[in-house]
Amino acid sequence: MLIWINFCRLQKLVGISSKFINTPKRFSMYFTGEDNKFSKMNYHVVDLRSDTLTKPTPLMRKAMFEADVGDDVYGEDPTVNALEEMSASLLGKEAALYVSSGTMGNLIAIMVHCNQRGSEIILGDKTHIFKYEQGGPAQIAGVQVCTIPNKPDGTFDLDEMENHIREDDDHEPRTALVCVENTHNLNGGKVLPLDWLDELAQRTKKLGIPLHMDGARLFNAAVYLNVPASRIVQDFASVSFCLSKGLGAPVGSILAGTKPFIKQARRLRKALGGGMRQAGVIAAAGIVALEHRHRLAEDHVRAVKIAKAIAEAENKYVTVDMQNLQTNILLINVDANRVSAEEFCKRLEMVTKEEETLAATHANKGTIVKVWHTNKSCVRLVTHEGISDADVQAVITKLKFVLNEYK
Amino acid sequence: MLIWINFCRLQKLVGISSKFINTPKRFSMYFTGEDNKFSKMNYHVVDLRSDTLTKPTPLMRKAMFEADVGDDVYGEDPTVNALEEMSASLLGKEAALYVSSGTMGNLIAIMVHCNQRGSEIILGDKTHIFKYEQGGPAQIAGVQVCTIPNKPDGTFDLDEMENHIREDDDHEPRTALVCVENTHNLNGGKVLPLDWLDELAQRTKKLGIPLHMDGARLFNAAVYLNVPASRIVQDFASVSFCLSKGLGAPVGSILAGTKPFIKQARRLRKALGGGMRQAGVIAAAGIVALEHRHRLAEDHVRAVKIAKAIAEAENKYVTVDMQNLQTNILLINVDANRVSAEEFCKRLEMVTKEEETLAATHANKGTIVKVWHTNKSCVRLVTHEGISDADVQAVITKLKFVLNEYK
Amino acid sequence: MLIWINFCRLQKLVGISSKFINTPKRFSMYFTGEDNKFSKMNYHVVDLRSDTLTKPTPLMRKAMFEADVGDDVYGEDPTVNALEEMSASLLGKEAALYVSSGTMGNLIAIMVHCNQRGSEIILGDKTHIFKYEQGGPAQIAGVQVCTIPNKPDGTFDLDEMENHIREDDDHEPRTALVCVENTHNLNGGKVLPLDWLDELAQRTKKLGIPLHMDGARLFNAAVYLNVPASRIVQDFASVSFCLSKGLGAPVGSILAGTKPFIKQARRLRKALGGGMRQAGVIAAAGIVALEHRHRLAEDHVRAVKIAKAIAEAENKYVTVDMQNLQTNILLINVDANRVSAEEFCKRLEMVTKEEETLAATHANKGTIVKVWHTNKSCVRLVTHEGISDADVQAVITKLKFVLNEYK
Amino acid sequence: MLIWINFCRLQKLVGISSKFINTPKRFSMYFTGEDNKFSKMNYHVVDLRSDTLTKPTPLMRKAMFEADVGDDVYGEDPTVNALEEMSASLLGKEAALYVSSGTMGNLIAIMVHCNQRGSEIILGDKTHIFKYEQGGPAQIAGVQVCTIPNKPDGTFDLDEMENHIREDDDHEPRTALVCVENTHNLNGGKVLPLDWLDELAQRTKKLGIPLHMDGARLFNAAVYLNVPASRIVQDFASVSFCLSKGLGAPVGSILAGTKPFIKQARRLRKALGGGMRQAGVIAAAGIVALEHRHRLAEDHVRAVKIAKAIAEAENKYVTVDMQNLQTNILLINVDANRVSAEEFCKRLEMVTKEEETLAATHANKGTIVKVWHTNKSCVRLVTHEGISDADVQAVITKLKFVLNEYK
Repeated sequence: MLIWINFCRLQKLVGISSKFINTPKRFSMYFTGEDNKFSKMNYHVVDLRSDTLTKPTPLMRKAMFEADVGDDVYGEDPTVNALEEMSASLLGKEAALYVSSGTMGNLIAIMVHCNQRGSEIILGDKTHIFKYEQGGPAQIAGVQVCTIPNKPDGTFDLDEMENHIREDDDHEPRTALVCVENTHNLNGGKVLPLDWLDELAQRTKKLGIPLHMDGARLFNAAVYLNVPASRIVQDFASVSFCLSKGLGAPVGSILAGTKPFIKQARRLRKALGGGMRQAGVIAAAGIVALEHRHRLAEDHVRAVKIAKAIAEAENKYVTVDMQNLQTNILLINVDANRVSAEEFCKRLEMVTKEEETLAATHANKGTIVKVWHTNKSCVRLVTHEGISDADVQAVITKLKFVLNEYK
Repeated sequence: MLIWINFCRLQKLVGISSKFINTPKRFSMYFTGEDNKFSKMNYHVVDLRSDTLTKPTPLMRKAMFEADVGDDVYGEDPTVNALEEMSASLLGKEAALYVSSGTMGNLIAIMVHCNQRGSEIILGDKTHIFKYEQGGPAQIAGVQVCTIPNKPDGTFDLDEMENHIREDDDHEPRTALVCVENTHNLNGGKVLPLDWLDELAQRTKKLGIPLHMDGARLFNAAVYLNVPASRIVQDFASVSFCLSKGLGAPVGSILAGTKPFIKQARRLRKALGGGMRQAGVIAAAGIVALEHRHRLAEDHVRAVKIAKAIAEAENKYVTVDMQNLQTNILLINVDANRVSAEEFCKRLEMVTKEEETLAATHANKGTIVKVWHTNKSCVRLVTHEGISDADVQAVITKLKFVLNEYK
Repeated sequence: MLIWINFCRLQKLVGISSKFINTPKRFSMYFTGEDNKFSKMNYHVVDLRSDTLTKPTPLMRKAMFEADVGDDVYGEDPTVNALEEMSASLLGKEAALYVSSGTMGNLIAIMVHCNQRGSEIILGDKTHIFKYEQGGPAQIAGVQVCTIPNKPDGTFDLDEMENHIREDDDHEPRTALVCVENTHNLNGGKVLPLDWLDELAQRTKKLGIPLHMDGARLFNAAVYLNVPASRIVQDFASVSFCLSKGLGAPVGSILAGTKPFIKQARRLRKALGGGMRQAGVIAAAGIVALEHRHRLAEDHVRAVKIAKAIAEAENKYVTVDMQNLQTNILLINVDANRVSAEEFCKRLEMVTKEEETLAATHANKGTIVKVWHTNKSCVRLVTHEGISDADVQAVITKLKFVLNEYK
Repeated sequence: MLIWINFCRLQKLVGISSKFINTPKRFSMYFTGEDNKFSKMNYHVVDLRSDTLTKPTPLMRKAMFEADVGDDVYGEDPTVNALEEMSASLLGKEAALYVSSGTMGNLIAIMVHCNQRGSEIILGDKTHIFKYEQGGPAQIAGVQVCTIPNKPDGTFDLDEMENHIREDDDHEPRTALVCVENTHNLNGGKVLPLDWLDELAQRTKKLGIPLHMDGARLFNAAVYLNVPASRIVQDFASVSFCLSKGLGAPVGSILAGTKPFIKQARRLRKALGGGMRQAGVIAAAGIVALEHRHRLAEDHVRAVKIAKAIAEAENKYVTVDMQNLQTNILLINVDANRVSAEEFCKRLEMVTKEEETLAATHANKGTIVKVWHTNKSCVRLVTHEGISDADVQAVITKLKFVLNEYK
């Protein structure tokens, strides 16, 4: 039996050259249980942990190689400028800024919008900003978060939102911004409904509160809704999206808004140390990523294929909610009394003797599927540019095999 | 008809000497509707807006007059030292610090406990710290708040709390503190049950997370539970309480904890500009306040009297929940479809012609009751040191009269 | 021989009631060197460590006792309102705010003026704000300090100041404020010359940079210059001054400026936890302090008397600069090779056998003079409301005696 | 006559495709003064504004193209890991972290070292951190800067430094770190003497204060001193250096220190939004940059060549200090009464009719030299990877021609 281990730690433990770490899909090292020695075997590894794992495509590599560059801190990098213009155009905004991560994009947006001491932002309690950006709004920007419950579809109750808008009172912070996340990661890549966005915009406009969209996976939403991204964000004062998730670029995110907004954002990027020099070398990959944004539809199709396979298995402990699968994030519900999400993940990363036997006639000895659990009863699979139809088929075979173990 | 107006604004508008502003109970000025001139009349004013409104008692005035003082920034004020020792002793803590407000006490506590960048605190979504301290944890201390729903009794779900404790992950802030509020203001002066506090302590201790109590009205809780305050806070790393609410002192709050905690707190008080010199002049009133802390029982009795009068009126639009009245904060529920909380407050601050006629045989021309609404269907009355049995009787008479109008 | 010790520590060590700590001028306890037991003796203690040590006068005590009060958080305390109006009027500003300390006044001023992220203030390198406010501008307000050398007279070079005004550049913070300190504490209570202030104002006005004066001892400057305080601060956007230094009030400082400035300041005071309730009880003493502000002239006269005595002693190791003595802070220069400033301070706090013998015919057994050193060759004496002519005479006698030891 | 203009602005003004902006050395567009139309001409452009302008070399392009990558947020990018290991090794430190800029490296270092509220750092008043990082220590990290005058050689007085180390006092911030810059940019690329660094280390070690080096151009110092970089930083708790200056990589800097330090730094990088995904694509260029670090010697030689040419011209208005030219930053002093530094810069960016005539026999019509002034009497030239011997010769020719105009 092969046990998957964290290869970066492994590298340090046994001194493997880093050449071996960047695991290709055909993977050929393992520990044998008995004598702790390495043997060579061939496994098929499918990494569905996140769409952040994508590696640059050959087209991106080529674009990076050929990129025309300059010093972007002086605004002289033509490729960065081109990416920013292209992004602003796609979002229907005046200007855009290339930043090193989605976290930085969101943080800068909050810093610009919350330009008065004692500001507060309203956002859902399952948003990435609140959960996974290290409390940056407070830590770095001095801004209080006011969280309201996210519904399963990634929205929140608009009346509740209005109740949390602060009046002008010295005891209270000032409500300076409302943030939404689209698609909504923790809720399984849910696309915020356009009519909900429209009503949100109508209500906040009336109150004079600007809107920011953490659109890390905005183009997945656009593909799902079959509308331009600019339609989705038409009422938002600012939008961030990631080039390095499903779009497949190696590094970077975009923050877009009005020209004065981006002017302030550029200044704050400098304060955070996010100013990069000849950033055109990576921005070039971002341009390719955007040009191929419609490819995201394939990821959605592949997620559905995997989901269907699970649904068809009709396992009573391991289920999927086909209704709610919209984009590239597939949540598998497990009955924690039968098998915890963590155990299920570990099982998918293992290849049993029996699997090896079955696989023996194939080119590889079995499939290792890497996924993550979001809590004790939920496992998350994310399809992305690096996942082919063959990978999906291998995952389905694996899942069917494993599901049989939980009858 | 007399319309109550904001007298501080009035002062500025018409240039009344400030002598007239600090409204005594016998109040004798009003606008006549027609010619905007002042006339003299006698009304009985009962101010139930807050227990922060208490004025120092004669005993406090005397203690302040005679207080032995020194420079507290050098630790040389004997009266401040005595108040701090007395407070620490009452709470069963090693040391205490006199601060200018409860907000400062809570803020300093959070700053001391959250001594690492990227910290987060867990607290109820109806707590004063989250709602009414201007986002200070984020604004001043750089600390993210993680709010969980407060139940009607001021507690929150302990499983939900545990779910929000962060694991060690670079994406996430570190859970550094859990805060509770006792009594719980917005929920109507609810006393946190001792067994809930004990279970909270047991769970957080296991996880190594310290506890802070915003005990602004801690001694109301102690009176209600009939236990020493030290019992209530026995498992809390830090506690703040206000001398200037029901206890009746004019200025100040106390923050208590271990000696090293208070050493850090003293330093942070300096940073915030909270260091006061011969603060013994006000600390002296704090000592008197603590000596008479058992007087709070009277406020609770008076709140019950008012509540009973409302209950007995059996008005279907204006009701009280006798079951949940524990201390000095009485919440009146109004049916906003019949009369909004704001209108109800305004009505209590008015004296109609009819009331004047009825009151004509008395020493005054009617009663003005000042109260606040917390939302559109809830009115808050707070009894305190400045409210006598005669005041309560006048309030009851007034309420009965007014309730009759909403049949 | 008697050794002065820190009485607050002593209290904790040997459990003396706090009654004994607030040392009156006639002081009657000491350690005997041999058997560590207390004896009663009479020493004359003159505490010249700081003018923050002043205790409220009988008039202040009376005013506090009788003060008309209300809840200042609601703006309803007539005495606080009166003090704020009086202060604004004296400074020729639209409005003022009562705060708990000079540090808070300065911090709030900086927070209001620096209302954009990435702000910087320019100030002298020997100012209290930079040296002794715990880095509050950075720690609490996120504002960078740009210090330029203070000249011996408390001013700085205006060309150098202009050189440090930032241009608009994303690499640099924005210069948002220039601060001065008047009188200048560390430089020996120097009064900033009016013509320098005028030129400073002219230059900064041209550049659009507002001015803040840390006028902790502003009224000492006004007395020295024999002009109204309002003349001194006429070009300053904001001014803070302390009621609790030479003016003698027990607690508090004032921050003054325009109405919109004070509106923001009031809000920030709340954020810092500086909101006090019935603060009229201490504000009353502030009013008395301001009414008697011309009394500060006596402190200046007394400082000169002490300085003259030292000058006349013509001691070559211990000298004063009579030319530069302007207000109530007297710097004594000591030749650290002969006696360090710290040793000199300790000597003044001791009474030798010989002194006791000499003093035997008097009502007391000798004089203890408490002072501080600011560095290894400089001792600081501060005269204040609590120092009488008799005290000055005793200090002179003591100094002459001690100076004789360093021939 | 040709006037150089800002091409990014030009692009927006006249809508040139971004293809034209990234100006190659052979530059062929200009405005004619009369009819505002573009003509084609050939000028030789030498850009000496900064060594941040370097574009990736073919070797770097190749390395980036072939780079083995993974998700660095998960620690799975082998090329980033290799760069970090290589960097740590070169500096003799336990660990290193790849960050997007030198500003971020310095900011994170300050945040890690200043892990207590109310911290202060000591640094020179001409350091990049104080002057050109937007007040980040205060703005983002809440840390006060205490600046002391930089001497012309980039050092500062160590006694003065010791005088600014704070004692433990609640009025004062805590001295948490001393920072130096090596080479010292504003002072003309000065290399901090090893013996000064050694004495600095000895003194701060005694006081328990850690040291951070902003080694943006550390390898220029190592080349100058002919010692390994690890020798220079041997006593420093942390070091940052830039891959994107003279080393020539397009993006990124390194922060190095102990393993626990880097663990904290990694966490703070995430908070700032500096986490990048497949950052190996740019880290690959960093590895090439470090492998070729000895190339920096050529830049130093070229700077000397230019300086010598100026010195030999013996112009009395335009001079260089050959003694103080150590690395790749050449400061030219101009007599502002004859020609301001700004005017001198503009002149170097122009090609006169006379120059064109002289150049007519050559392949190009004259040389445009781009440089910057640091103040009104100082012009800065920086040699770097993108400057060849031919460029240097052209610059010398140009300078000789221009110097003749200021006789």
